[in-house]
Amino acid sequence: MDIREQMILKAEAAKRAADAMTMVSTVVKNKALLAMADRLEAESSRIIEANKADLENAVAKGVRKSYMDRLMLDKKRIAGMADGLRQTASLPDPVGEGDYETVRPNGLEIRRIHVPLGVVGIIYEARPNVTSDAAGLCLKAGNAVILRGGSEAICSNKVIIGILQEAAYSNGIPEGTIQFVDFTDREAVNIMLRLNDYLDVIIPRGGAGLIKTVVENSSVPVIETGTGVCHTYVDEGADLDMALEIAVNAKVSRPSVCNAMETLLINSKEAPGFLPLLMERMTAEGCELRGCSRCLELVPDMKPAEELDWSTEYGDLILSVKLVDDVNSAIEHINRYNTGHSEAIITNNVRNAHLFQRRVNASSVYVNASTRFTDGCEFGFGAEIGISTQKLHARGPMGLMALTSTKYLVYGEGHIR
Amino acid sequence: MDIREQMILKAEAAKRAADAMTMVSTVVKNKALLAMADRLEAESSRIIEANKADLENAVAKGVRKSYMDRLMLDKKRIAGMADGLRQTASLPDPVGEGDYETVRPNGLEIRRIHVPLGVVGIIYEARPNVTSDAAGLCLKAGNAVILRGGSEAICSNKVIIGILQEAAYSNGIPEGTIQFVDFTDREAVNIMLRLNDYLDVIIPRGGAGLIKTVVENSSVPVIETGTGVCHTYVDEGADLDMALEIAVNAKVSRPSVCNAMETLLINSKEAPGFLPLLMERMTAEGCELRGCSRCLELVPDMKPAEELDWSTEYGDLILSVKLVDDVNSAIEHINRYNTGHSEAIITNNVRNAHLFQRRVNASSVYVNASTRFTDGCEFGFGAEIGISTQKLHARGPMGLMALTSTKYLVYGEGHIR
Repeated sequence: MDIREQMILKAEAAKRAADAMTMVSTVVKNKALLAMADRLEAESSRIIEANKADLENAVAKGVRKSYMDRLMLDKKRIAGMADGLRQTASLPDPVGEGDYETVRPNGLEIRRIHVPLGVVGIIYEARPNVTSDAAGLCLKAGNAVILRGGSEAICSNKVIIGILQEAAYSNGIPEGTIQFVDFTDREAVNIMLRLNDYLDVIIPRGGAGLIKTVVENSSVPVIETGTGVCHTYVDEGADLDMALEIAVNAKVSRPSVCNAMETLLINSKEAPGFLPLLMERMTAEGCELRGCSRCLELVPDMKPAEELDWSTEYGDLILSVKLVDDVNSAIEHINRYNTGHSEAIITNNVRNAHLFQRRVNASSVYVNASTRFTDGCEFGFGAEIGISTQKLHARGPMGLMALTSTKYLVYGEGHIR
Repeated sequence: MDIREQMILKAEAAKRAADAMTMVSTVVKNKALLAMADRLEAESSRIIEANKADLENAVAKGVRKSYMDRLMLDKKRIAGMADGLRQTASLPDPVGEGDYETVRPNGLEIRRIHVPLGVVGIIYEARPNVTSDAAGLCLKAGNAVILRGGSEAICSNKVIIGILQEAAYSNGIPEGTIQFVDFTDREAVNIMLRLNDYLDVIIPRGGAGLIKTVVENSSVPVIETGTGVCHTYVDEGADLDMALEIAVNAKVSRPSVCNAMETLLINSKEAPGFLPLLMERMTAEGCELRGCSRCLELVPDMKPAEELDWSTEYGDLILSVKLVDDVNSAIEHINRYNTGHSEAIITNNVRNAHLFQRRVNASSVYVNASTRFTDGCEFGFGAEIGISTQKLHARGPMGLMALTSTKYLVYGEGHIR
């Protein structure tokens, strides 16, 4: 059997399981999630063993240290994966929740309720914890899932998947609900992106390259996630102490994540007072600044920014800085260069705050707070499957509800039209 | 300038207009919609003149009569288009409506509101009324729109678009909000399907071929609409008089539309009593029946159904009929052959009704009513931009709300993480 045939077998099994999942109760799903968590912890030495093989292969390939860190599993991280599953078990079940109900003039009763999406495909990279996170969230929302992890974590993922499947299926979850693509070559991804008869959605999780490949080549609907070129704009009359603390937090607290700031926009009237403070503090934090030409007039030892800087997600301790003359110029810069993730204004001007929130084209628009809060837990969803940077279906942090669709239930008494 | 460059100019203009539209109030949008309606009626002779040219070209090409009917415009149909725009003006504005609000333990205030999608692409075929319907709905939901109509209606569409643009822009709608692609060759569509930097969504409206092309080739997110292989299942113990009336309505009242029934499933215990009645009544209605082998044993003069019949959207007075032994067999047949549109059960059994609604994989699942009700107006949305047969973003009839996205507005007082 070639890869394509094997992929279709997996997809068919997932589709059958998704049908069976429509009849599985919340109690059964939660029990399975708790069993999956317990089994992961109980088998942690087996997982760590497999992970060692992945790490050795990675060393042989000479990958970067940050990459090795993402790949590595130890007892503590496995406990974290287990806790994630327990957390998912504790969240309210979105399936069956109603959001529209009407009786039409002709007496027809119409309800709209949330139902599972069906079969969810997840394509991800090095982090093996995504395997249990994504499987747990998809399962809780009543979906079957087809997981395709990166080749670097294949040994870890195979062991984790085996444990999750065994725990799930022996606790009432239909066989086939959790599928894993164990072919490491690219062809498997290309086939997956065209399985429209089986998959209801594909969610890519990983770097910009992976996401671009999926968006450009998938005929299955995609939810685009993750890239974040986030801005903060310091308005005229802003509290500059607050602005400095927020800027430092947004850039420095965790520069590798997608909700970290990449560009700071400063109102030109505040720049003479603010820019030297920023330069001093950011330098002390180990962060390099790259300024526009007007910045360099005020702080000549700043490195100059180039055009490419405005659209770059550094993921590192680098910040581009630009002076703008008013809130509208700030908004226009943002709407030109951002990725629709998270943007903030630091201001005391209520009109500018309102204008900024209305015009800025992004999932999450902040007044006087750090962009770092864009996160499923911080927003009150308990967990997240990713942060959507597109506008269809879900925008911003996606909780369990984003893993559901809806269905109209209509009741008549012989109604004809 | 080649087609690609011109398409990008249109898309850039639409994106700028979408930004400006975020600041346009409901009052202005409604005034513009009413002006667009009035101008269409005032200029109806000019539209009819242009339509004549389209009809003559169609005759020269020798198209089918049903096609000519879709293309044709007269005073009454233009009045209908104008009424559609007035109806859209009267609907509540979805923009700004909130659907999530929370204060987090750290004091961060988070609201989620509906915002325009941005730039909506509509690719459609012969019916020139789609031009005003789609433009009006997109505008009301605060979007810019890029319309790409079929080459058959190009003369009518150009005149209609000119009228709509003039009325909109002279009544406060930003220039560029309504774009029309006047290139009739396929290349324009192929370019449009790849304009990810400008378009937020593409909605195809038309036949199965058009929809397939768009779904398979678009990297812009797509909302799949329209194909309907709809079923009705007559359960054991159903009210057979009701079943017959619903079956006739679902098949015969308007066989060309997507919510018409294509396959009737009959519980084998009811078939001996029901099938002859059905055959007699449907034949009287001019409808051809194509039965499974078990049907033919009961009614030997029925035409036999072939495998292909079960997945065919006839759009005509033809009905395939199959006997099944229980509700689960009915559900399995439906989930195998349907397109996720509308399905109905005729039953007196509350457990079977519940099971059917829970397991059937479709946007709208009916108990004791005709599938013909799946429609934006019938569901209480006042108007519709199409009927989604996919599960992401919107499923079933799409009203104005389906033309919006959401945005998180977050308020802090210097909050850092």
